[in-house]
Amino acid sequence: MSRKIPRTSKDKRLPIATIEWENGKVKIIDQTKLPHKLVRIYCPDVKTLREAISSLKVRGAPALGIAGAFGVVLGIQNSSTTDFPTFARELEEVIDYLGSSRPTAVNLFWALRRMRDCAEKNKDREIPQVKRALEEEALQIMEEDRIRSRQMAKKGASLLKDGDRILTHCNAGALATADYGTALGVIYRAKEEGKKVTVYADETRPLLQGARLTTWELLQGGVEVTLICDNMAGDLMQRGKIDKVLVGADRVAANGDVANKIGTYTLAVLAKENEIPFYVVCPISSIDLQILSGNMIPIEERDSREVTHFARKRVAPNGVKVYNPAFDITPAHYITAIITERQIFRPPYKEILGELKK
Amino acid sequence: MSRKIPRTSKDKRLPIATIEWENGKVKIIDQTKLPHKLVRIYCPDVKTLREAISSLKVRGAPALGIAGAFGVVLGIQNSSTTDFPTFARELEEVIDYLGSSRPTAVNLFWALRRMRDCAEKNKDREIPQVKRALEEEALQIMEEDRIRSRQMAKKGASLLKDGDRILTHCNAGALATADYGTALGVIYRAKEEGKKVTVYADETRPLLQGARLTTWELLQGGVEVTLICDNMAGDLMQRGKIDKVLVGADRVAANGDVANKIGTYTLAVLAKENEIPFYVVCPISSIDLQILSGNMIPIEERDSREVTHFARKRVAPNGVKVYNPAFDITPAHYITAIITERQIFRPPYKEILGELKK
Repeated sequence: MSRKIPRTSKDKRLPIATIEWENGKVKIIDQTKLPHKLVRIYCPDVKTLREAISSLKVRGAPALGIAGAFGVVLGIQNSSTTDFPTFARELEEVIDYLGSSRPTAVNLFWALRRMRDCAEKNKDREIPQVKRALEEEALQIMEEDRIRSRQMAKKGASLLKDGDRILTHCNAGALATADYGTALGVIYRAKEEGKKVTVYADETRPLLQGARLTTWELLQGGVEVTLICDNMAGDLMQRGKIDKVLVGADRVAANGDVANKIGTYTLAVLAKENEIPFYVVCPISSIDLQILSGNMIPIEERDSREVTHFARKRVAPNGVKVYNPAFDITPAHYITAIITERQIFRPPYKEILGELKK
Repeated sequence: MSRKIPRTSKDKRLPIATIEWENGKVKIIDQTKLPHKLVRIYCPDVKTLREAISSLKVRGAPALGIAGAFGVVLGIQNSSTTDFPTFARELEEVIDYLGSSRPTAVNLFWALRRMRDCAEKNKDREIPQVKRALEEEALQIMEEDRIRSRQMAKKGASLLKDGDRILTHCNAGALATADYGTALGVIYRAKEEGKKVTVYADETRPLLQGARLTTWELLQGGVEVTLICDNMAGDLMQRGKIDKVLVGADRVAANGDVANKIGTYTLAVLAKENEIPFYVVCPISSIDLQILSGNMIPIEERDSREVTHFARKRVAPNGVKVYNPAFDITPAHYITAIITERQIFRPPYKEILGELKK
């Protein structure tokens, strides 16, 4: 029950293999160790994988979809039942278990739904064959993510100009997907097309995905990057040093409102005030047609220690209250365009709903 | 050449003695040790004091004025000349030395100018008497700061309502002045008046003055405070959880543009977008009539290690470029009012110029 992931012949060797399926195990980069160490760990069972998701060893909406799909494979691989209804119940338990790990990124739920549908489609087959079908489906989800990453990158790069100075937030790169990433994919592609593009990366408190991950992967990719604290982005925009803002998304509502890493809304307001285009780059799987507007998207609140401690050292007084939402909502009217693998959506975003229902 | 600072009879015992003059030495709280340890250190000479300013052991615009004044006293106390022109030259060297420590907060330059003027006024006296006059002037600057702190607090508190939820940035409190502070002074006063006011404190990257200092002193003062990362303020505003923003200032230009801790501009833009009043609280000594607009205010850029390292541990990759401005400029049109000890200024701020020239 293992094999190397298939690669399309046109794809280059990936710069960073964030998530892989190897010998029946999920192999991931432990992103909590970056940028100091590039450590890959194996998740041989669903419990280890779920912990890796909760603790952000693997993160980023598209990567969470892939991880969730393989999590299902791991979770049902030892099922000894030969009867589909029992298997389906066990599958549902695994899906619930994985789905409760992180509430905001919809790609996780999208992938879990695909896995459930896949089992259902194969319900008349022997259980070992259903398991094989689920493994194929997870590999397919990963492969599709890779292709979509390239498609988004190509579409997005058409919007960038030579010399553009891009601001980005959190990590929406290779470390968040199976390939080039979403927002950073656009930058890699623009570079491949010969455009000189430079990046300012928000450090992205509290967990510093920008400082730790985005700067690291951009340096790996030969992209010029300058690190700033989150509260410095406004100053750069005001000084005319930012041409475009590119971010990813954890979930897009049907009206175009975007849930993304905390601080995204602030960048969108600053961009509007300074008349700078603000682009969201995400696959269609991040769009949740069940959610009519952003205020219906569940927002994960995380441990206060992420804010009060730094490198395990306490920086704030004992007993201080903390508010630590992991995401915020950017209303659609701040967003210049949403770049997906299929098309670039522009306001009014209700068109998303129309297009995607086709 | 020492004495305890005088206290006006109506003043309560200060909650926190941030800067004192004791036995011919400047005694300060080493703010780099907070909130873990409340450590007071002595600066017996101008070199130690200047290092304390550069390394932010003492910080905050009003406190920098006081520190600068006492720095002059320390710097000329061992002068052995008996002749005023020589003394004046030595004084000028001390003033230059202190003035080069931090470029943005104007209170430092304002206090150094007062010290120079004081010496000039006493030029016909014996040098020991000039030294004594300078010490008296420094004590006077500190005492005035205390009185102004209370006056600003009273004026500002008139704008707060029972139940107000205040957002503040960096530390504009007792730790930034000789008394109650600027922005936080307003909050302390409102509390004394029986108004229930709660505070959200931005942690204020990179040096975490909000997390380390503001939460600490508000907890000391019995004010309910919730710590957030800088990039969470927008989310709170959007959710209708902030009624007013109160910040200090490092320098106000004659047109009302404000230089303050990096991130202030972002809060002002967010406040405007969410129709939340944005108040700057500062003494008249922070207003620089020589500077016609904010873009003429020199902005200090600090060491990249403040951003790349945390608690001496590197968090960003080696070799990454960093942009680390300590302050930004908030254009006057974002500011609802500037609260000073003399009056509350409202737009159009050119009135500041008119009033202050009287």
